[in-house]
Amino acid sequence: MRGVWIQQTIELRARPRGFHLVTSEILDEVPELESMSTGVAVVFMQHTSASLTLNENASPDVRRDFGEWFDRAVPDGADYFAHTLEGPDDMPAHIKASLTGASLTIPVTDGSLALGTWQGIYLCEFRDNGRTRRVIFTAFGE
Amino acid sequence: MRGVWIQQTIELRARPRGFHLVTSEILDEVPELESMSTGVAVVFMQHTSASLTLNENASPDVRRDFGEWFDRAVPDGADYFAHTLEGPDDMPAHIKASLTGASLTIPVTDGSLALGTWQGIYLCEFRDNGRTRRVIFTAFGE
Amino acid sequence: MRGVWIQQTIELRARPRGFHLVTSEILDEVPELESMSTGVAVVFMQHTSASLTLNENASPDVRRDFGEWFDRAVPDGADYFAHTLEGPDDMPAHIKASLTGASLTIPVTDGSLALGTWQGIYLCEFRDNGRTRRVIFTAFGE
Repeated sequence: MRGVWIQQTIELRARPRGFHLVTSEILDEVPELESMSTGVAVVFMQHTSASLTLNENASPDVRRDFGEWFDRAVPDGADYFAHTLEGPDDMPAHIKASLTGASLTIPVTDGSLALGTWQGIYLCEFRDNGRTRRVIFTAFGE
Repeated sequence: MRGVWIQQTIELRARPRGFHLVTSEILDEVPELESMSTGVAVVFMQHTSASLTLNENASPDVRRDFGEWFDRAVPDGADYFAHTLEGPDDMPAHIKASLTGASLTIPVTDGSLALGTWQGIYLCEFRDNGRTRRVIFTAFGE
Repeated sequence: MRGVWIQQTIELRARPRGFHLVTSEILDEVPELESMSTGVAVVFMQHTSASLTLNENASPDVRRDFGEWFDRAVPDGADYFAHTLEGPDDMPAHIKASLTGASLTIPVTDGSLALGTWQGIYLCEFRDNGRTRRVIFTAFGE
């Protein structure tokens, strides 16, 4: 085994609240992935009010509808929340982040992420004032 | 370290909408896992309207109840969805897939997945007309 | 590549239903992580009615509010559940466990988990009578 590790911090620019397709923005930062024939990649979000998920990479309506559903499922300013100091969207953002998850684990095959035809990486920004979000990309393989 | 990689595409046969136990169907495809003493396995779903999760491997009622809850939490044909072209179950399928997740990361110990006594792998099929689903099994270890 | 594997079973003491910060309890069990410069860690819960998630590590109110939301989203004793033999909190526990997930995959950098400033590991205990919970910590790197 000739093991190879790639590990890189990626800053994703600030985006409005919502679900945003960032596959190519991430892959552009790790061109060395092309030389890995078999491996696993981990994309990790270092925040607790934004997250990552894989979903449909074509229709903007899908990403919009994600927002519609999540905002109904975890309502801003619900009266049973105690942690309200940072605004009505803060506690819902934490819960939504755990429902979707902080990391993606994706196989690497022939120098690419082995995503299905319709899969793309979503940055899930749950705050009204989304900031730059820091993601750590790690891949290991041969 | 004598590193070993296993990577294999597995086609899971089409199943009706619902939650289906597929642990042995997956493991039967990767007999070489038995020679790995310590490692990590990643089971990855290449679709966005089906997913994978770990849960109780004994009672069919548990899998039925998963369907009951998810269908109430993300209702078919909700009027706030814009992405309706592919049917009333399509947009809910995308959201349910992100709530459960596209991949499982499971330790490997002594030639087996280190699952708890009650843990099994569920294929979560969210479409009324579920198709064959493609999963990539990757394991690396020594 | 000088590959290193760490794999260890950790017993987390029984806790009441709720969300509990266990980052240091886990890290105290794997001091050898300090010698890993680049890698990936997988923290895996071997149960189906408790889970793991990453979220805010400072305010106890956040963890309390997680409980408020999850208990409303998946109500104890809902009349559409068939799997009720083990109590009204059992089936909701299974669903909540799949919503949050059985495993965390976290990059390792310079001998530490590369968590963001505000990220901590939550043990999510969904049963009224939570027991000792078994977690497998696996890390590999160089």
